[in-house]
Amino acid sequence: MYFTLDDCRSSSFIVSTNMALEKLRKEETLAMRKRLIGQSCRLFYSDDPVKIMKARGQYLFDENGKRYLDCISNVHHVGHCHPSITKAAAEQMDLLNTNARFLHDNIVMYADRLAATLPEKLCVFYFVNSGSEANDLALRLAQQYTQHQDVIVLDHAYHGHLMSLIDISPYKFRKLAGQKEWVHVAPIPDTYRGIYREHHPNPGQAYADTVKDLIEEVHRKGRKISAFFAESLPSVGGQIILPEGYSSKVAEYVRSAGGVFVADEVQTGFGRVGSHFWAFQLQGEGFCPDIVTMGKPMGNGHPLACVATTVEIAGAFTANGVEYFNTFGGNPVSCAIGLAVLDVIEKEDLRGNATRVGAHLKDLLTKLQTQHQIIGDVRGVGLFVGLELVSDRDQKTPATETAARVVKRLKEEDQICVSTDGPWENVVKFKPPMCFSMEDAELAVQCIDRILTDEKEASDI
Amino acid sequence: MYFTLDDCRSSSFIVSTNMALEKLRKEETLAMRKRLIGQSCRLFYSDDPVKIMKARGQYLFDENGKRYLDCISNVHHVGHCHPSITKAAAEQMDLLNTNARFLHDNIVMYADRLAATLPEKLCVFYFVNSGSEANDLALRLAQQYTQHQDVIVLDHAYHGHLMSLIDISPYKFRKLAGQKEWVHVAPIPDTYRGIYREHHPNPGQAYADTVKDLIEEVHRKGRKISAFFAESLPSVGGQIILPEGYSSKVAEYVRSAGGVFVADEVQTGFGRVGSHFWAFQLQGEGFCPDIVTMGKPMGNGHPLACVATTVEIAGAFTANGVEYFNTFGGNPVSCAIGLAVLDVIEKEDLRGNATRVGAHLKDLLTKLQTQHQIIGDVRGVGLFVGLELVSDRDQKTPATETAARVVKRLKEEDQICVSTDGPWENVVKFKPPMCFSMEDAELAVQCIDRILTDEKEASDI
Repeated sequence: MYFTLDDCRSSSFIVSTNMALEKLRKEETLAMRKRLIGQSCRLFYSDDPVKIMKARGQYLFDENGKRYLDCISNVHHVGHCHPSITKAAAEQMDLLNTNARFLHDNIVMYADRLAATLPEKLCVFYFVNSGSEANDLALRLAQQYTQHQDVIVLDHAYHGHLMSLIDISPYKFRKLAGQKEWVHVAPIPDTYRGIYREHHPNPGQAYADTVKDLIEEVHRKGRKISAFFAESLPSVGGQIILPEGYSSKVAEYVRSAGGVFVADEVQTGFGRVGSHFWAFQLQGEGFCPDIVTMGKPMGNGHPLACVATTVEIAGAFTANGVEYFNTFGGNPVSCAIGLAVLDVIEKEDLRGNATRVGAHLKDLLTKLQTQHQIIGDVRGVGLFVGLELVSDRDQKTPATETAARVVKRLKEEDQICVSTDGPWENVVKFKPPMCFSMEDAELAVQCIDRILTDEKEASDI
Repeated sequence: MYFTLDDCRSSSFIVSTNMALEKLRKEETLAMRKRLIGQSCRLFYSDDPVKIMKARGQYLFDENGKRYLDCISNVHHVGHCHPSITKAAAEQMDLLNTNARFLHDNIVMYADRLAATLPEKLCVFYFVNSGSEANDLALRLAQQYTQHQDVIVLDHAYHGHLMSLIDISPYKFRKLAGQKEWVHVAPIPDTYRGIYREHHPNPGQAYADTVKDLIEEVHRKGRKISAFFAESLPSVGGQIILPEGYSSKVAEYVRSAGGVFVADEVQTGFGRVGSHFWAFQLQGEGFCPDIVTMGKPMGNGHPLACVATTVEIAGAFTANGVEYFNTFGGNPVSCAIGLAVLDVIEKEDLRGNATRVGAHLKDLLTKLQTQHQIIGDVRGVGLFVGLELVSDRDQKTPATETAARVVKRLKEEDQICVSTDGPWENVVKFKPPMCFSMEDAELAVQCIDRILTDEKEASDI
C-alpha cells in the first residue's frame, strides 16, 4: 500500500493520483479555509498559497503534480511519508493505543533508546504531544524543583504558543501582553550582529557574563532564578550558533543562583546538526543541561514531544504528590512512531548525511558570498543553515525585502520552498528533511545565485 | 492487515499474538517504567498494574490473553483500534502530513463537518493537539476578545495539565500553587450533595445566581470577568448533570458582565450523551456557548483537539496581528482521522447505541439502588454515568474505601475496568467506548451487585 519515492517521481502517477485525491477545487478550499479556520492561522505564500496533495522524502507535490523541493520541513525529519514510519504507526494502531496509565513496552523501550542518546544524568522522561506542552512542563519542573519563579530567556526567543510560553518568548510577548516581572531577557549571543562579534577574543565568556549580570540584577530586586531557558540553536532569533563555552558558563552562573538550565531542543534535536544527536552537545562534553525538551522532528509529523530531566528534578516534581496525566502523551502508537524514527535515523545514516550535505551547502553558500555583496553571513551546522542578507555589509542593514523576494521567487520560478527568520526576517533558512541530497543543495544554491544576480541587476538599473 | 473483533475473540489468536508481541517480561517493563518515566505519571491499579497488549472495541487484552471489559476509555470513542480509523490514518500518512500553513482539503472539510454539529454561530475553528492546548487557547481567546482577565470556574473542576489551566482548575490548584486573584470559584451545581438539591424548586436558577453573586463580588473588587469556564458535564467533579436552565442563565449574567461562556466538551462531546452531539445541548436549544473546546474522543486516541468559536471572537484574536501557529495542529493525518471518527459515529449509529445502552445501564443501576443502601445516587446521560456510594444515605457520607474496593475487585475478580471520580473519589464512573453493549452493561451491573452484596456481608460480620 505504501508509495515508494520512485512511484512519486513518475509524473503520470503524480497527476493521476493527485486528480483522484483532490476533493475540492483550489478556490473552494481557499474559500472554506477563509471562512472556517481562524485567520490567525496563516498560510505560507499567503498571496498565492500552494495546495500540497502529496509528499515523499524532501519533495512536495501540488494538485497539478508540480514538484517542490522542501528546504524547511524540519518536522518531517526522516523525509515526508517515510514508509517505515507509516508501517510502524499502522501496525500499532491496529493493536493498541491506550493511555500511559496502562503498563506497556513501547513507552519504556522508547525512553530507554532516548536515554542512550543523552548524558547519563538525563534519564527520566515525560511524554507529551507538542514542543509547547514540553516547554510548559519544563517550566513547571524548574519552578517546582527550585522553588524559585524567575526565568531568564534570550532575546527574540520563541518557546511555544501556550500562555505560559508566550510569557517567556520575547518574540511573542513584545507583540502581546508585554514582559512579566518574573521574566528577564538576556542578549542573544549572535556573533554576527550582536553586542560581541567575531573578533571579540572570547564571545562565549562575554555573552555568558551578560547572564551573570542579569542574575545579579534579579537578586538585587529580591527575586530568585528558577531557570535559564534557551534553544540550543536560536531559530526564530536568526539561525544563531552559540559561541564556544557559552552554555557551560551560563549553567555555572545559573546553578550558583539556585536555578536550572533548560535546553529547548524542539527545533534542533535528533541529529539535525549532524555531528551530534543534540545541538547542546556542540557546546562540548563538559556541558549538560538539567532539562531538555524535544518535539518537532520526534514523530516525523505525528504529535509527539518529550521532556528529559534528572532524577533529582523528577523527584521534586513527584514529591508534590500531584499526578501528572497527559491523555495522549506516551501512548503506544506515539512511542512506536518515535522508535521507528530513531531506527530510520540510524539505518539511513541521516546524521552522516546531514553532516556531509550540510557542509556542502554551507560551502556553496560561502562561495556565493564572495560573489554577492548582499550575503552578509553564512552560518550553520549540519542541516540547520542560515543565509543572512544585508544591503550594507559594514552597517549590516537587514535586506528584509530582498529576502522576501528570494523566498517568493524560489517558490514561483524554481518550486523551491525556503523561508526567513531572524528579528528582521532577513535570514533565509534551510532546515530540510534530513534526506536532503547534494544535488538538492546544489540546485537551491544555483537558483539563489541566479535570483540574487537578477535582483542586483534590477537594483542597479 | 487489520484484525477484526472476531479475530480478537478467538482465544488461540489472542495468546499466540500476545506472546509474539510482548518484548519484555512484565517485571522488566515495570522496572524500566519505574526507572525511566517520571513517577508523577501514575499507573492504573498501581499495586498490581495490568499490562495491556491489544484492544478491540470495548475489550482490552493483557499479555496472557486475559480479556478486560473497558468501562472507562472515553478517548477510544468508537472502540479501540477501529479498522476504519487505522485505515484512514495509514492512507493519509502515506500521502501527506504537512503543517496547516499549506492549503489542504482535509482541514476545511473537517471544520465544515464539525460546524454542521454545532449551532450556526460557532463556525470558526482552531485545531490543536490536546484538550489542554484547546483550553489554553480558549482562555487566550476569551481574554483577548473581552480585554478582561478574570475567570469563573466551577468547584472541583479540571481543565488540563498546563500551567494556565492548573490556575483555573480547583481540583489541581488547591494541591499546588493555590488560587490566583483572577480566578473565582462558583459552587458546583450538584443537586445530589451540593448547596441546592433535588427538592429545590429551581436549582438551575439558584445555582446560576451563585455565579451572579460572584460576578458582583468581582466587580466590587474593581476586576472584570473574561470568561465563565465549565465542563458541560463536570467529570472529575463527580459525573454531575447540570440542572435545567443553569447554563442559559449563567451565560446571560456572564455576558452582561462583558465575559464569554466557554463550554469544555473535552470529555463529553461527540455524542457521548446520546441524545445530542454536544453535552451543552442538553441545556436546551436556547443555549449556545461562545467558545467550545473539544479533545479526548475526537481522534479516537490520536492527539487531536479543537476550539470552536464565533466570528467576533476569532476576529478579535486576528486583530492583534500575531500569528497563531500550532506545528501539528490540523495536519492532514489528524483531520483524516477526525473525519473517519465522525463517519463511524454516524454509520454505526453510536449515538443511538449510547442512548439505548446508557438508558439500560442507568435503569439496571437504579434497580440496584433499591437493593443496596450504599448506592446513594445513580445519575448520568447516555454513556456518561456515575454511581455514587455513600455509607449513610441521609448524611451522604462518601463511601470512598468501598468505592476503591469495588474498582479493585471488578478488575481482579471480573476483569472489568472502572474508576472513581468526584471530590471524595466515591463515584464509580462509566464512560466506555461508545460500542458498549447491552450485555456489557448487564455484566458490569451483575458484578457490582455481587461485590456490593459481599461487601455488605463482610461489614455486617
